[in-house]
Amino acid sequence: MTKDQPLDEFALIARIFAPLAAGDPNAFGLLDDAAIIAPRPGEDLVVKTDGLVAGVHFFAGDPPDAIAQKLLRVNLSDLAAKGARPHGYVLTAAFPQDVSLAWLEGFAAGLKADQAEFGLHLLGGDTMATPGPLTLSLTALGHVPQGTMIRRAGAKPGDAIYVTGTVGDAGLGLASLKKEALGLSEADTVFVRERYLRPRPRLSFGQALRGLAHAALDVSDGVIADLQHLADVSAVRARLELAALPLSPAAARWAGGGSDRLLRLAAAGDDYEILFAAPPEAASRLVAKAARSATAIARIGTVEAGAGVEVRGPDGRALPAGRGGYRHF
Amino acid sequence: MTKDQPLDEFALIARIFAPLAAGDPNAFGLLDDAAIIAPRPGEDLVVKTDGLVAGVHFFAGDPPDAIAQKLLRVNLSDLAAKGARPHGYVLTAAFPQDVSLAWLEGFAAGLKADQAEFGLHLLGGDTMATPGPLTLSLTALGHVPQGTMIRRAGAKPGDAIYVTGTVGDAGLGLASLKKEALGLSEADTVFVRERYLRPRPRLSFGQALRGLAHAALDVSDGVIADLQHLADVSAVRARLELAALPLSPAAARWAGGGSDRLLRLAAAGDDYEILFAAPPEAASRLVAKAARSATAIARIGTVEAGAGVEVRGPDGRALPAGRGGYRHF
Repeated sequence: MTKDQPLDEFALIARIFAPLAAGDPNAFGLLDDAAIIAPRPGEDLVVKTDGLVAGVHFFAGDPPDAIAQKLLRVNLSDLAAKGARPHGYVLTAAFPQDVSLAWLEGFAAGLKADQAEFGLHLLGGDTMATPGPLTLSLTALGHVPQGTMIRRAGAKPGDAIYVTGTVGDAGLGLASLKKEALGLSEADTVFVRERYLRPRPRLSFGQALRGLAHAALDVSDGVIADLQHLADVSAVRARLELAALPLSPAAARWAGGGSDRLLRLAAAGDDYEILFAAPPEAASRLVAKAARSATAIARIGTVEAGAGVEVRGPDGRALPAGRGGYRHF
Repeated sequence: MTKDQPLDEFALIARIFAPLAAGDPNAFGLLDDAAIIAPRPGEDLVVKTDGLVAGVHFFAGDPPDAIAQKLLRVNLSDLAAKGARPHGYVLTAAFPQDVSLAWLEGFAAGLKADQAEFGLHLLGGDTMATPGPLTLSLTALGHVPQGTMIRRAGAKPGDAIYVTGTVGDAGLGLASLKKEALGLSEADTVFVRERYLRPRPRLSFGQALRGLAHAALDVSDGVIADLQHLADVSAVRARLELAALPLSPAAARWAGGGSDRLLRLAAAGDDYEILFAAPPEAASRLVAKAARSATAIARIGTVEAGAGVEVRGPDGRALPAGRGGYRHF
């Protein structure tokens, strides 16, 4: 706390965090040691935790509401890919000593807006002081009908591979924030930075994928690396067609159809779209469900027998994978 | 990672953390994006999160197994005070770059031993690198029969106030680790430091308190401060008899019956015992349940109508509360 705005932990919780818990009586206004989740009959609880460190996962100077929303959304993105409906979250935050009340209020405002948009509440938390960088951890909890969580394992040879939204924008946004000269217009720069800053969890479409997708995960490490994860645990081979990657106008302008640049977009992380495998006969239902949740989907490849990831360039030929696969891009 | 022991995040998870998740098939070997908890019919899930920062909540040079166990146990202590049976936990850890494989193995060994002792499994997690101090966050999940979680609110005038175990040891341990000259023998020093380092969550007795205790919480801020929390949310007044504080032989030798020293023990935190209020007619059942779970309990005060905490010295007279209550001790 800065000296002119002293808040002890109890005042901090009462003023900043308790209002975020007011919507769920089982959070007890953050005045108890724990919260309750009363499970609905016939539902499984889905649990995910992910953290962020200033200077590693975000820039310390990012707007506090955007930091809060990124923290919440990277977790909601996993719930989305698993087909879960959000229920609530708990949060631990290690704040540097000089955090201001205005910063904390911005952080809480970001959470408040997302709670309203995505339909969940704060259930509990712990605030700490740290001599190090702002360090955040969030555990998100959601529900699925019993036995319906969409796994990473389960992709089958013959399945089509799809991704929601567009790919590579967040990677360009991060590169731009790191001052790499990308040659983007001002408007495109704003767009890709925003995509990096505030991912959009595909919650409604993710729930529509239950019973349709054989396997799914969210794109955090990049399409190629995440396809590798899906292929590994499903014990299959994934073939990716670079030419089929769905690109935003900004990313398309940047790539210009070049194979190297498409590969870089496919290797870029932080998109938080849903990557999934579904049988060919599900195609028309997928298109209908995507339309109903206003989510673009694109078929980007095919599951085959075997292992690993094969990337085909715009000319249809397999690209050579470097040492360590495509991860070095 | 140190350069001679390079482990990327995936190797780290596979080698260090996945074995801790092997006991619960719904953790999917940490190979999926999320874990499942399949609720048992008629049970509520109890959720608690708490974090630790090196140099703030523990000493960076503490043994890694003790750090891991403190992290887990401060959360299990809350589950205990709520009457919950542990189910599982998720973990985020921001490791400094120079963490060694041996340190990580020690950390995992601490968790493994506690998982076996307290009956729960790792369900998921996130490991990160940080330029700052080791920063840990853990979310513990447990169960109670529906509607039976023991709240902080609920203490009633006439209730007796009890605490488990002994009080003030951890505070002496911390003072000793901070090189305060306490005049303790070597054996007493070892004892109080171990009490600070490795709290004992009272899980079995906590579950026995369901239906008997009107209100409970764990002693983390100190008996007086935590009594204040209990009194506040229960809208009652708590009277504490210093002479009734249960002391270890080490703490008793240090206190020597002096009112100032007793007050300091009552104000010291980190004991992680259960502080609870129960009606007088529950006394004999409480004693029987305490015996069955090999847990000492001591009656240390009484709930009255009113607000705040009154502390009575060994002579039976109320001690004056300083500005800000007794917290300044």
